[in-house]
Amino acid sequence: MLTRLSSLFVRTLRDDPADAEIPSHRWLVRAGYIRRAAPGIYSWLPLGLKVLQKVEMVVREEMDAIGAQEVRFPALLPREPYEATGRWTEYGETLFRLQDRKGADMLLGPTHEEMFTLMVKDLYSSYKDLPLSLYQIQTKYRDEARPRAGLLRGREFVMKDSYSFDVDDAGLEASYQAHRVAYQRIFERLGLEYVIVSAMAGAMGGSRSEEFLAVADNGEDTFVRSPGGYAANVEAVRVAAPASPQLADAPAMSVVETPDAGTIAAVVEILNRDLPGRDWTGADTLKNILFMVTAPDGTKRPLAVGLPGDREVDVKRLAAALEPGVADVFGPEDFARYPQLVVGYISPVSLDGTRVLGKDSVTGIEYLVDPRVVTGTHWATGANEKDRHLVGVTAGRDFEPDGILDVAEVREGDPAPDGSGPLSLARGIEMGHIFQLGRKYAESLGLKVLDSNGKLVTVTMGSYGVGVSRAVAAVAEATCDDRGLRWPLALAPFQVQVVATGKDAALFDEAARIGGELSGRGLDVLLDDRKASPGVKFADAEIMGMPLIVVVGRGLADGVVELRDRRTGDKREVPVGDIVDEVLRQAR
Amino acid sequence: MLTRLSSLFVRTLRDDPADAEIPSHRWLVRAGYIRRAAPGIYSWLPLGLKVLQKVEMVVREEMDAIGAQEVRFPALLPREPYEATGRWTEYGETLFRLQDRKGADMLLGPTHEEMFTLMVKDLYSSYKDLPLSLYQIQTKYRDEARPRAGLLRGREFVMKDSYSFDVDDAGLEASYQAHRVAYQRIFERLGLEYVIVSAMAGAMGGSRSEEFLAVADNGEDTFVRSPGGYAANVEAVRVAAPASPQLADAPAMSVVETPDAGTIAAVVEILNRDLPGRDWTGADTLKNILFMVTAPDGTKRPLAVGLPGDREVDVKRLAAALEPGVADVFGPEDFARYPQLVVGYISPVSLDGTRVLGKDSVTGIEYLVDPRVVTGTHWATGANEKDRHLVGVTAGRDFEPDGILDVAEVREGDPAPDGSGPLSLARGIEMGHIFQLGRKYAESLGLKVLDSNGKLVTVTMGSYGVGVSRAVAAVAEATCDDRGLRWPLALAPFQVQVVATGKDAALFDEAARIGGELSGRGLDVLLDDRKASPGVKFADAEIMGMPLIVVVGRGLADGVVELRDRRTGDKREVPVGDIVDEVLRQAR
Repeated sequence: MLTRLSSLFVRTLRDDPADAEIPSHRWLVRAGYIRRAAPGIYSWLPLGLKVLQKVEMVVREEMDAIGAQEVRFPALLPREPYEATGRWTEYGETLFRLQDRKGADMLLGPTHEEMFTLMVKDLYSSYKDLPLSLYQIQTKYRDEARPRAGLLRGREFVMKDSYSFDVDDAGLEASYQAHRVAYQRIFERLGLEYVIVSAMAGAMGGSRSEEFLAVADNGEDTFVRSPGGYAANVEAVRVAAPASPQLADAPAMSVVETPDAGTIAAVVEILNRDLPGRDWTGADTLKNILFMVTAPDGTKRPLAVGLPGDREVDVKRLAAALEPGVADVFGPEDFARYPQLVVGYISPVSLDGTRVLGKDSVTGIEYLVDPRVVTGTHWATGANEKDRHLVGVTAGRDFEPDGILDVAEVREGDPAPDGSGPLSLARGIEMGHIFQLGRKYAESLGLKVLDSNGKLVTVTMGSYGVGVSRAVAAVAEATCDDRGLRWPLALAPFQVQVVATGKDAALFDEAARIGGELSGRGLDVLLDDRKASPGVKFADAEIMGMPLIVVVGRGLADGVVELRDRRTGDKREVPVGDIVDEVLRQAR
Repeated sequence: MLTRLSSLFVRTLRDDPADAEIPSHRWLVRAGYIRRAAPGIYSWLPLGLKVLQKVEMVVREEMDAIGAQEVRFPALLPREPYEATGRWTEYGETLFRLQDRKGADMLLGPTHEEMFTLMVKDLYSSYKDLPLSLYQIQTKYRDEARPRAGLLRGREFVMKDSYSFDVDDAGLEASYQAHRVAYQRIFERLGLEYVIVSAMAGAMGGSRSEEFLAVADNGEDTFVRSPGGYAANVEAVRVAAPASPQLADAPAMSVVETPDAGTIAAVVEILNRDLPGRDWTGADTLKNILFMVTAPDGTKRPLAVGLPGDREVDVKRLAAALEPGVADVFGPEDFARYPQLVVGYISPVSLDGTRVLGKDSVTGIEYLVDPRVVTGTHWATGANEKDRHLVGVTAGRDFEPDGILDVAEVREGDPAPDGSGPLSLARGIEMGHIFQLGRKYAESLGLKVLDSNGKLVTVTMGSYGVGVSRAVAAVAEATCDDRGLRWPLALAPFQVQVVATGKDAALFDEAARIGGELSGRGLDVLLDDRKASPGVKFADAEIMGMPLIVVVGRGLADGVVELRDRRTGDKREVPVGDIVDEVLRQAR
């Protein structure tokens, strides 16, 4: 196919769009691939749509290859199935809700577990019908609080979602592995450097899950890796609990005067001055933070979190752990309701032994602690009095947490939970997510089949997603440079851009001839036949990012054209008689 | 591609779905092509999706062939552009509206004139950039009052919409003609019997427009045709006005007593009895009907319509003529406000010459009349008094209409407005619609370009739609019989269904071999490898409707298989060695 740039619906922009935060967003807009229609909502221009369709095709082929069957569900959905699973409420403000003319509640599908489950329930009834994997490539809607980075976090986006249905756990594991392999093939074909990390299941419910992250400095996700092969989204890291010291070895609780010690560092300084003989650090202190957690239905409950004083709460780990609830730190009006809590000096216990945090304490506030706060560990912490701290406050003796909440920041060099060495941190873009949902949805919606003994059993499910429109941005992000886009051959809208430079009609004729011949040999060719200066044309070719560029210009008089590789920056002269074969060779 | 029916996600249904009104709806559901998710909203199962994708490909190829460029706009759109053109309000309840988490008004796109206009305004600025045609194949949303007939009138549906942009009227005409030709090719390739009829532009605005209707008894649209080539949607028929008689020839107005004459027929009977000498018919009477018209913004205005008493108002013609307003006949509470109007005896004029209907009359009610009510025609009509009628009531002398409203029913045998002979009526399904929008949207949204003289001119536009998901139903409707679907080769999910009947494993092996060979030769093959009775398999093959069916059964012992043509019902035995070539020959 040969397309003339003079008639292609595209304009490159000289300036960055005001809202562009990252390079892929900037270049996709400037190169005329996409345009913003509303916050987090984009229109696809011809160049962008071609890339999107190529990604769709890669995904479709690999899903077909594992025997998944393509279907297509509506985006506009009735409330009832989502009500049955609780997600109508749990999704909170992220769900686009609307009413039809008759007042019926509807939603724009953020993901389709309910619909697929009901469809399989409608059609199938026996273990003989399973295993089954269904997928769709479809437009999804999520009313993100902060749409950002162009296609990376949009409110309308294209996703491949698939669902597996099995009669038992072994079947689910096999379906999950098949998807895992398909995803590896997909991301390899897209040319993305990616990692597979353990993940939280989040609002999906379910148990085992992994994410496919494209490694990218501008990614929203942080993940950890160890030399021994541990890899997890930072939200999914589970810190290993240390061995419990003997309770009997714990020192008695005692008071330290800490006037004006407004920071952990100030407290540590006083401890080292007044209680010498050991090297006090922030890691010896217990920091207690109060949150108000709002459930999707609007109900609120207080929550205290205790963690070593040298670590902050990681807000994304906290958000993931409490999902679908949302946590805000206590404000003055919250503290006003709990006079037992002295801001800056909060402790689970007072010097007289009164329990202050915990469901059974005087406040009744649930108290969850970092995994490092095991029974027998003792801590310096507040005294529930101004200007005083306690030391020797011992877990399991002086206070009893209600449970564990693993939301402290993970740091470079922390030990991997599986003992596989120190962790390193990096950032990535979530490209795929595979979940073992288990029976949650099948139970809520009554999807059962007869097993080989004629007994009704609940089906076990998996749920698998690929961000299709997001992949366009992720590949752009991974490949662009400071002059524009640089597509891999597999995804480029056109494999070759033929640029005629100069004013001589013969140059344009020759460029058209070469373009036509390449097109005739099966390549997608963009012919820059515009009456514009070479500078404009070269700059546009670099912004638009076709991998191969043929320049037909002054050298034609000497029988040569220039072949440029946008990906490597290589340029070389090629005899005009050889150019078609040379391009074909490089485009394979 | 070879697909085994034993693992295909499909179940045929023995019974008709309760809501199925027409055969295509019944069979698409029963054959496992689609399932209802909500009123007017359908999920596509694998078989249905394959047909949909084939229709999409036909449409895409023909749009590409006329140089239209594919883009893709969001379905979730901001309010502002639709506000600027007035359609936010004009669409009334048909528009799905919603608010995002920040309270911003949004809508689900019913059609995208505004977005395309703004995009071209964003990118282009010169006449040199035009002509331009852009298209998308995309999911659209309309909250229909009465979704019906499965895919024929849905609330979420797939449409190809395209838009042309030209600098002058000649350019628009050329773009319009190009689309017209593309649409002819599309509907020919889909195998539809269709007519091109003049149409109303409706809520789109604009002037010239034509519809492509698939001829179908179950179609929602009524159209007329004449032997001389006139063709129009019944809503678009414009009745020719007769020549005006001389006013001087009109008889004087006089009263007739018409006690208990509650119908036109009763009045006519009295006229023939009391005023003999001519043959009075309903066509000599003037019927006046009062409507309350509600604009999309909720404001109401009364409207009187006068038409020959032998014709009813055609509600669809009326709705089309008043769109985006909606007309309801006067209720008692409406009449109560106009004591001058005596129900059953309404006239534009009273015996004393008082004008009762018309903007300048005592009621001030706008009065529009049928085109046949020309100046000089005289009528029998009410007397604005109970039990009395007037005769000799003459247009242009005794009353003055405010204008013409052409909404009377069109009848079989009525003369074509262009004199091309008597009209015949038929029904059809609207498959395509082409509009010359003109400058309405470009003016509202400020789309101007510099012309060749450097002067800013407003761009003129066309808008063109094809119902893509509707085409699936229209083809099914045109081709199905009383045993199921019967797809043409070009759209069938699989060209061939190979059915193994019997219990012998060798039959299944041979069926698989034949299927594999056909698949290897490039056909899409569905292999019925289920352990089911021949009766079940044959019935399913007929319901599912693949055009060619190969039955591998008892005859195999004699070296023959059966080749059935689902479209014609033909069956014949073919030597097993010839079957692959024979199927290939028929599938071309």
